[in-house]
Amino acid sequence: MARYQSIVAYDGTAYHGFQRQAEGLPTIQAKLEQALGRIGWQGESLLAAGRTDAGVHALGQVIAFDHQWEHPTSALTAALNDQLPVDIGVVGSSQVAEDFHPRFDASSRVYRYRLLLSPQPDPLRVRFIWRRWAELDLAAMQRAADGLLGRHDFGAFGQAPVDGGHTRRHIFKADWVAAGDEWHFIIEANAFLQHMVRRLVAALIQVGENRVGVQELLAHLDQNRRRWQGNLAPPAGLTLLEVRYEPTEQLSNYQWEG
Amino acid sequence: MARYQSIVAYDGTAYHGFQRQAEGLPTIQAKLEQALGRIGWQGESLLAAGRTDAGVHALGQVIAFDHQWEHPTSALTAALNDQLPVDIGVVGSSQVAEDFHPRFDASSRVYRYRLLLSPQPDPLRVRFIWRRWAELDLAAMQRAADGLLGRHDFGAFGQAPVDGGHTRRHIFKADWVAAGDEWHFIIEANAFLQHMVRRLVAALIQVGENRVGVQELLAHLDQNRRRWQGNLAPPAGLTLLEVRYEPTEQLSNYQWEG
Repeated sequence: MARYQSIVAYDGTAYHGFQRQAEGLPTIQAKLEQALGRIGWQGESLLAAGRTDAGVHALGQVIAFDHQWEHPTSALTAALNDQLPVDIGVVGSSQVAEDFHPRFDASSRVYRYRLLLSPQPDPLRVRFIWRRWAELDLAAMQRAADGLLGRHDFGAFGQAPVDGGHTRRHIFKADWVAAGDEWHFIIEANAFLQHMVRRLVAALIQVGENRVGVQELLAHLDQNRRRWQGNLAPPAGLTLLEVRYEPTEQLSNYQWEG
Repeated sequence: MARYQSIVAYDGTAYHGFQRQAEGLPTIQAKLEQALGRIGWQGESLLAAGRTDAGVHALGQVIAFDHQWEHPTSALTAALNDQLPVDIGVVGSSQVAEDFHPRFDASSRVYRYRLLLSPQPDPLRVRFIWRRWAELDLAAMQRAADGLLGRHDFGAFGQAPVDGGHTRRHIFKADWVAAGDEWHFIIEANAFLQHMVRRLVAALIQVGENRVGVQELLAHLDQNRRRWQGNLAPPAGLTLLEVRYEPTEQLSNYQWEG
């Protein structure tokens, strides 16, 4: 018996989020555990780096599981892909330390939020973008994003985890990047509160629409009495790009720019 | 009453092709006609530039219909989009000559076929690509594509239209273009036989895999006794990019490179 990790990509549109649901709703975790079960896995629950919300996608989710696998790990990847639906795929697998935990050992997570700036719908991208057609002040959005960098209490933007813990998070990167007719928000932090990326994206867009000032937004950092009242950006635009581990180099799927 | 045209984009994954089916299966045409009916259209059948197969997408399908519309055409676009499902969208609309026919007046059609070259699945692109992981000789594929240019009888690669007509088609462009980890085949012709693009793409890939020689493929042009025996490339990779009209400049959605 050894521990393996797999990098998993998925289109989250059809699923009620990553985490297995008691009621048997379709989830990414349930599909992965079904696939693992069909190749001889006898565990009760796989481990995962993060629980993405319903409709959120991943290119670099990380899972771990114990298995008595006696073939190359490339065959493990292929065997899992044979059992998975087309909207979930394993990008690669490797053997890891017996005590490796994809969530607790992660040093950071990288998310991308895709905005499409267009007055017209694009049915071919609708599963993966949030379309905005108002003029956006992207310089102001980047100034506000810059203000998020470093270690702050994000209690105004999300709840503490149910299993305890504080609401301080360290943001390493928060960049708006042009990509054709899209703008991508790339954010990396040691960890995120639930809904934090989607709430920040919606807040940054309010800044871009001149409905909220940069300082007005940033005044909600480091004190969690004044909760941020804004909505969440829709899940479709959000993708978990990568989970990073240190010091061991981790298999990375998505090479994000910059 | 006046004639209008709309440029239509769609993700064809969920549909049994463009053309309305007697049995009431979901089709792009049926959804468009439903949407038109809800905004006061009283026609029996819209006109369209082409009938894409089940699972094939479009960024620039062109439809036409007669309507007593008394507002700006931008409002017509918006009204249609309000009535359409998210996987079908109108990109723009304009008034056209009363005898405009999107199919018979078209001077050319441009299709794109997307290949993903990767050993691993990509669930976020699976609806829009054909994934190939064998080594491909792209230079040979381009040489074969060059041989398709000009006016040829493509009878070996498809049937004549059921409503009559010959199997000669004029290819204006046939290019393989690198796009990150994808290769796109861009082909423009005055018109295409049914399944012709998908059959040519599959044949070109056989050339790229050195299973068929360039000359062996091209020997099937201009004589329709020796039918090409290859399969069709899957529909997911194919998108109708644009329909072109001359001499009047047409509203174009997708600006394809090159």
